[in-house]
Amino acid sequence: MTGNLTFVLGGARSGKSRYAEEILARIPGPLSYIATAQAFDDEMRERISHHRARRDSRWQTFEAPLDLAEALEACGSGQPVLIDCLTLWLTNVMLAGCDVEADSERLVEVVARFRGPLVIVSNEVGLGIVPDNRLAREFRDHAGRLNQMVAQCADRVVFMVAGLPMTVK
Amino acid sequence: MTGNLTFVLGGARSGKSRYAEEILARIPGPLSYIATAQAFDDEMRERISHHRARRDSRWQTFEAPLDLAEALEACGSGQPVLIDCLTLWLTNVMLAGCDVEADSERLVEVVARFRGPLVIVSNEVGLGIVPDNRLAREFRDHAGRLNQMVAQCADRVVFMVAGLPMTVK
Amino acid sequence: MTGNLTFVLGGARSGKSRYAEEILARIPGPLSYIATAQAFDDEMRERISHHRARRDSRWQTFEAPLDLAEALEACGSGQPVLIDCLTLWLTNVMLAGCDVEADSERLVEVVARFRGPLVIVSNEVGLGIVPDNRLAREFRDHAGRLNQMVAQCADRVVFMVAGLPMTVK
Repeated sequence: MTGNLTFVLGGARSGKSRYAEEILARIPGPLSYIATAQAFDDEMRERISHHRARRDSRWQTFEAPLDLAEALEACGSGQPVLIDCLTLWLTNVMLAGCDVEADSERLVEVVARFRGPLVIVSNEVGLGIVPDNRLAREFRDHAGRLNQMVAQCADRVVFMVAGLPMTVK
Repeated sequence: MTGNLTFVLGGARSGKSRYAEEILARIPGPLSYIATAQAFDDEMRERISHHRARRDSRWQTFEAPLDLAEALEACGSGQPVLIDCLTLWLTNVMLAGCDVEADSERLVEVVARFRGPLVIVSNEVGLGIVPDNRLAREFRDHAGRLNQMVAQCADRVVFMVAGLPMTVK
Repeated sequence: MTGNLTFVLGGARSGKSRYAEEILARIPGPLSYIATAQAFDDEMRERISHHRARRDSRWQTFEAPLDLAEALEACGSGQPVLIDCLTLWLTNVMLAGCDVEADSERLVEVVARFRGPLVIVSNEVGLGIVPDNRLAREFRDHAGRLNQMVAQCADRVVFMVAGLPMTVK
């Protein structure tokens, strides 16, 4: 019904996470949630607990701010997995000084061979004015490239607008 | 033809206002225009007069920088109404120190029970890089949530790209 | 198959250039590439050479950071042309202190009467938070207006999301 891999793209507060959760919640049995967020400050802590409060007891949460490919591999096949979200993971990888391109490629390899329902959430961040600072421009480039790679593997890609999915693929 | 509530979303200069006006201009008789813009400075004054010059004499303009729900209720049912735009209203509500969530919910209630052709214009602002300052992030969150609530009530939602409407719902 | 004029809009790193090149690469024979980028610094130089490395020997490159209308006219009819991209040209025109509106209108006139396959790439930049500085806001306005004018002439308009085209028109 949803294909193997669904990629949910959209802006801030566009309803990406809710929509992604609803796709998997239709499947009976346990569900895995891989969170890439790190609670650096109160604002982030609040956003995380807000998301967590919405998910019912069927969800098992794994935190993978950096080792996302490993966390996905550890999930094993067959069990539905939600990754939320790629752009936060990318932020963590950049801040940690890792090799972003190598890590992105490795992640996409694991995603491409994952068997079982997988939903990946990511932000589209390239539709505003070119940012002043170089780091933000690099982030935009990395995010755009990663989104393209994941979209290419995906069976279904949706672009969220005001909580509603537009079909891209 | 257009359903009761049409929600027109898009970026800056994407042709939202023009498209919204054209939807209602097809209906004969008087039309109500609820403007949320406030002319703080010359730049804003120019934008407002540019918009106003385009509308013909059938349009009656009401200004509602803050009391948008009240202005819509006062319009009465049956007569076509255009609200332009939600994001400027939200800016005004935040700057005035009002309770944004309560005011947003109250507005959506009035919108949901309004009878008669209603077109609401709003900006999508969440598709760029995460803003540096907290107020801008909060604004993005509020705008995204409000857009989702209005989109849920709407019979038709369009996303404007370069002056052209893409159907979301 | 693609109509006379295809307009490819999207965010940063959304796969616009690659998609635009692929449309024209299907046509046999020589192809013209009009580049509007100027190599001011190393970052830009790298982006330009990255793009250039992707195009095969059938492409002849013309640089037109400012005289875009003239460069397109000089191409003559019949031969496929790719313009990449409008928003960089607009940046150059603004920085050079030219009359942006007059230059935009003149460009659109030349585009509208061009005979032969033409693909134009442009950035959508209006979907983030309102920028702090006035120049960026003016750029957003000019870009939005120019995109609308070109989209109106176009036979086909696509909005790129993560490397995939969504049909707008």
